Amino acid sequence: MRTVYSEDHRLQDGKFELLEGQFMKAHEMPRRAEIVIDRVRSTKLGEVLGPQDFGLDPILKVHDRGLVEFLRVAWDEWAATGRTFDALPHVWPVPGLGRRLSDSIDGKLGYYAIDAGTPITPGTWRAVLSSANVALTAQKLVATGEKSAFALCRPPGHHAGSDFYGGYCFLNNAGIAAQAFRDQGAKRVAILDVDYHHGNGTQQMFFARDDVLTISLHADPKQEFPYFLGYADEIGAGAGEGYHMNLPLPWGTDWQRYTEALDHALKRIAQYGAEALVISLGLDTFEHDPISRFKLAEADYHRLGERIAWADLPTLFVMEGGYAVEALGVNTVNVLMGFEQR
Amino acid sequence: MRTVYSEDHRLQDGKFELLEGQFMKAHEMPRRAEIVIDRVRSTKLGEVLGPQDFGLDPILKVHDRGLVEFLRVAWDEWAATGRTFDALPHVWPVPGLGRRLSDSIDGKLGYYAIDAGTPITPGTWRAVLSSANVALTAQKLVATGEKSAFALCRPPGHHAGSDFYGGYCFLNNAGIAAQAFRDQGAKRVAILDVDYHHGNGTQQMFFARDDVLTISLHADPKQEFPYFLGYADEIGAGAGEGYHMNLPLPWGTDWQRYTEALDHALKRIAQYGAEALVISLGLDTFEHDPISRFKLAEADYHRLGERIAWADLPTLFVMEGGYAVEALGVNTVNVLMGFEQR
Ligand SMILES: [Zn+2]
Ligand SMILES: [Zn+2]
Repeated sequence: MRTVYSEDHRLQDGKFELLEGQFMKAHEMPRRAEIVIDRVRSTKLGEVLGPQDFGLDPILKVHDRGLVEFLRVAWDEWAATGRTFDALPHVWPVPGLGRRLSDSIDGKLGYYAIDAGTPITPGTWRAVLSSANVALTAQKLVATGEKSAFALCRPPGHHAGSDFYGGYCFLNNAGIAAQAFRDQGAKRVAILDVDYHHGNGTQQMFFARDDVLTISLHADPKQEFPYFLGYADEIGAGAGEGYHMNLPLPWGTDWQRYTEALDHALKRIAQYGAEALVISLGLDTFEHDPISRFKLAEADYHRLGERIAWADLPTLFVMEGGYAVEALGVNTVNVLMGFEQR
Repeated sequence: MRTVYSEDHRLQDGKFELLEGQFMKAHEMPRRAEIVIDRVRSTKLGEVLGPQDFGLDPILKVHDRGLVEFLRVAWDEWAATGRTFDALPHVWPVPGLGRRLSDSIDGKLGYYAIDAGTPITPGTWRAVLSSANVALTAQKLVATGEKSAFALCRPPGHHAGSDFYGGYCFLNNAGIAAQAFRDQGAKRVAILDVDYHHGNGTQQMFFARDDVLTISLHADPKQEFPYFLGYADEIGAGAGEGYHMNLPLPWGTDWQRYTEALDHALKRIAQYGAEALVISLGLDTFEHDPISRFKLAEADYHRLGERIAWADLPTLFVMEGGYAVEALGVNTVNVLMGFEQR
C-alpha cells in the first residue's frame, strides 16, 4: 500500500488547548504524524509519495466558501490585533440567540469554531491545505486503480463540517476525498469512521445525501466529546434518510464488543453497494490513549484492518485522531498491514 | 438611596477565564463588590441591607428550569469526576448541528454556556442565588414606595438569558427584578442597560414581549463581545416588535457621543410610559477599563445618574460589569449620587 505524506503538517503546531477545564499542551502535535511515517518506512509498507496540488475546487464542493476563506486569513487577522500567541475562540453563538458574523476576529473564531481546543497558528492554513491535498492525492491513486492507499493527513478532519471547524480538525479530508470519488464517477461511496470520537463533521456534511453513506463507530456522546451529536437515532434527513448510521459504544468497549458494531457497519456497506470506501482512521480507541476510554489493544488493530479488507472495496485510509503518540505508529500500520493480510 | 448587599458574593471566586486567546486571571472578582460597598459606606449613600430569601419562584418566571437546576448541581457533578479546579466548557453546539443534552457534565457546560470565561466554582450557586435575592430585595423597596434602590449584585446578570449563562453572568438579576415589578402590578417596565457590553441575555429574555421595554447602549458587536447579537436592526419579535432597542456605539465613544444615545433611550422610555425603570449598571464604559474601549471619565458617571433621574421613575439600579476595579467604587457611587443630585 502506498502512503501519501507531506512534511507541511509540521506547520500546525498549536501550543495549548482548553480541555475539560484546563488549559493544557495540545494533544494534536507534529510528533503524531512523524511517528506514523517512521513506522510506515521501517515496516516497508510501501512507497511514500508527496501530495499534488488540487487547488480549492474539490474543497469547495463540500465546504462553505466563508469557512475556507476564514481559515485562509484567520491568522493574519488575529496577528493584526498584535497577538503573537495562537488563536482560540472564547465566546460562541447560542442556538436561538442569533449568529451574526462580526467584523472582529474573535467573533469570527466563535462563529466558525465548535470548541476551544483547535488553535490557529501562523502555519495552520498551509498545513490544512496540504492535509487536504494528501487526501486527494491518495484518493486519486485508488480512483485510478490501486486497491488501497493511505493518506497520512495531519491535521485530521472528521470533526470539521461544511461550515465549522474544531476537534483539532479544520477541513474534512475524508469528506473531500469521498466527494472526489463521486465526481470521478463512483455512484455510491461509503465513509466508515473508526475514530474514538463521533465524526460529527462528516455526519453534518452528508446528512441529507444518499450518494455518500456515512457510518461512525464511537464513544457514546452521552459520555464523550462531541456530546451534542452522534446518537443512534440520527439516521439522515430528506434524501439522506437511512444513509447515516451512528453506532455509539460505552466507555470500556473492548475488541469483542467493538467488532459486533464493526460487523454491523460492514454489512450495511455491503448492502449499500458502495463502489469506494473511505476509512476515517482514528487510533484513539487504543487502551492507553490519554483522552479516551476504549480498550482496543495493539493486535486488535491488525484484526480491524483484516475486517475492513473483507468488504473487498477500493479503500482509502485517511488519518484522523490517536493521542497515545508513542504507540501510534505501530497501531496505525497494524491496521494497514492487517488490510493487506501481512 | 438604600443599598442591598450580601457577602455571599465572595463565594464566586473563579480563578481563570479564557479571553481572546489567553487563559488568564478572572476579571470578575470579589474585590469588585467590596470596593463598591466600601464606597457606599464611606460616602454615607444610605442604609445597607442584607437580602431576603425569595426562593426559586421569581427566578423561574424568566429562566428555564433546566438551566436553574443545572446551575444548582453543576459543581457537584463536576467534582464527582475528580476535578478540583473550576468548571469551564470547551465544546459547544453549533447552530444547525444539533444540541442534545449529554449526560456528561462537560457536555452540559457547553450546552448551557455561551463562553469559556464564566467559571463554576464550589460556591457559585450560593453566590448566584444570593445575587438574585439582592436584586429582588432592592426591587421590593422600590415597588413598595422608595424612589430608588441599589442592588449591589455580584455575580452580574445581563449576559444570562432564559436558558443560557456566560459573560460572567449566571442568572439575569435585572430581568428577574423587572418581572417582579410586572408581577406586583406595574403594567410596563423598562430595562436600560448602560454596561459597555450588549445585554444579550436581557434582549433574548424579553425579545417577544411588549410589557418589558429593553434598551441596550453598548460597544458595537461588530467589534466587541458578545459579537453575535446586539445590532441595531434587532427590534423585538412578535408582540415584542418595537419593544427592544440596541444602540451600538464605536470604540472610543466619549461622554458627548454617549449622551446622544442615552437621551434617545430616555425619550423612548418616557414615550413608552414605563411605571418602573431597571438600570443594568455596568461601569466598564470607563476610560481605564482593562477590557473595554469607551472613554467615559469619573465625572461623567455623576452626569449619567442625573440624566437617569430626569426620567422621574421609580428606579432600581442593578450592578453589572466594570473591571477597572480600583475606580469601580467611585464610578458606581457617582452614578447613584448623580441620580440623587448630591
Ligand atoms: Zn478522535
Ligand atoms: Zn460589561
